[in-house]
Amino acid sequence: MDIQHSNKPLILVTNDDGVHAKGIASLIEALRGLGQIIVMAPDSARSGQSSAITPNTPLRFYKIKEEADLEIYQCNGTPVDCVKLAFNQLLERKPDLLVSGINHGSNSAVSIHYSGTMGAVIEGCIAGVPSVGFSLCSFLSHADFSVSQIYVRRIAMDVLANGISPGICLNVNVPYTPDVKGIRIARQTDAVWQEEFMKRTDPHGREYYWLTGSMYNREPEAEDTCEWALANDYVSVVPCKVDLTAHHYIDHLKNRLE
Amino acid sequence: MDIQHSNKPLILVTNDDGVHAKGIASLIEALRGLGQIIVMAPDSARSGQSSAITPNTPLRFYKIKEEADLEIYQCNGTPVDCVKLAFNQLLERKPDLLVSGINHGSNSAVSIHYSGTMGAVIEGCIAGVPSVGFSLCSFLSHADFSVSQIYVRRIAMDVLANGISPGICLNVNVPYTPDVKGIRIARQTDAVWQEEFMKRTDPHGREYYWLTGSMYNREPEAEDTCEWALANDYVSVVPCKVDLTAHHYIDHLKNRLE
Repeated sequence: MDIQHSNKPLILVTNDDGVHAKGIASLIEALRGLGQIIVMAPDSARSGQSSAITPNTPLRFYKIKEEADLEIYQCNGTPVDCVKLAFNQLLERKPDLLVSGINHGSNSAVSIHYSGTMGAVIEGCIAGVPSVGFSLCSFLSHADFSVSQIYVRRIAMDVLANGISPGICLNVNVPYTPDVKGIRIARQTDAVWQEEFMKRTDPHGREYYWLTGSMYNREPEAEDTCEWALANDYVSVVPCKVDLTAHHYIDHLKNRLE
Repeated sequence: MDIQHSNKPLILVTNDDGVHAKGIASLIEALRGLGQIIVMAPDSARSGQSSAITPNTPLRFYKIKEEADLEIYQCNGTPVDCVKLAFNQLLERKPDLLVSGINHGSNSAVSIHYSGTMGAVIEGCIAGVPSVGFSLCSFLSHADFSVSQIYVRRIAMDVLANGISPGICLNVNVPYTPDVKGIRIARQTDAVWQEEFMKRTDPHGREYYWLTGSMYNREPEAEDTCEWALANDYVSVVPCKVDLTAHHYIDHLKNRLE
């Protein structure tokens, strides 16, 4: 990979909607000119894959496109597999930035736990690479990503210039409106998915279920949350930790269990 | 489900090694007598599934065993699918405790991010159920779970009696030794997987990769970490948060991006 031998910043791009999604094409377009871009993304949609890895199936990847400052690879694994393979088998040095997305649909609040987009971002963060996930609050496959591209570029430039503290990555969600008011740094909203499984019966008389559902916000009035930002036409940026420890609870548990 | 109409505690059990694994049988055995036990677990091994969900494939589950105070169901989904289906389609009330495991292999340090065992636990926690994941530091399918069963029972009894604060769940790992020294409440170790993909060539001349690797501990001397506890023959208990927000970093980012 000759393009890795440049002095330009090296940017790894991935997603969970697959290498052929409009969102990742929009992401690449928004990053053009900021550095050498290497894309390693799933060969098909992998929504809801979280940080899943593939220990029991052989993984493959191959180049599907190459042009100035851009190489695109597709892989048969999950988003996290893509990042691990890129770090270990493709890139000759640690990238300066990892970006994942632009996801077709919100990854705000607890959705971060299920999100393959954010799984890839957390993986980058674990490896010590400044990592940012971008999601647009529209599930349309042909959604208009032009407004979100402005914020991709602005945030990517900031992170390339200033970095992110080790162990922290960014979850960026963009409301689907042409009138975005700006950026709000926010905390993860206390919300839950209310799953409404759709129950059906197959031609053989056996029941089956489709996972569906809607999000219920337990604190809609809290102005410091990601959901409030999005509902009020702001881009929400939530800094997220790889360390899940509830540090404040350690002493309490020591008294109970040690 | 008549057994749900008892006054006994209701305990939901799941895992990621599948409903037929020795680990989940050992877990059920360890919990016997503490309440009414409902098991909803994957029909086969789902290691490394993290918090993955299945939005695009029909889900099915059915009862495979019923006896006094115990019903066992198997499901074709991920561990998180199992928990969601149990909460939404099987259980008539919120359980008093969710336990996941006993996993065949450690889920300490950053492995929590990839673990299907802990994905199920985080899902229980999001739903407001006191939730605990148990893992034994041996990948043997026929490992001896007898020591870990002692700690399963002790911790399950404590949590049934005292609960866990909302938004916090427990990641319990048990060293594989007959001489366990006791419990240490610990924080998540700063460690990374060093992936050593095994590269092979198929009969058609194409390369493929197996995911493998070993954990590298960046702070082996830190006595307050889960890895230190395990290396010194203690059971490690890490309280984990569903809220991933790096709260201390919000003001810093406001100055950069708002």
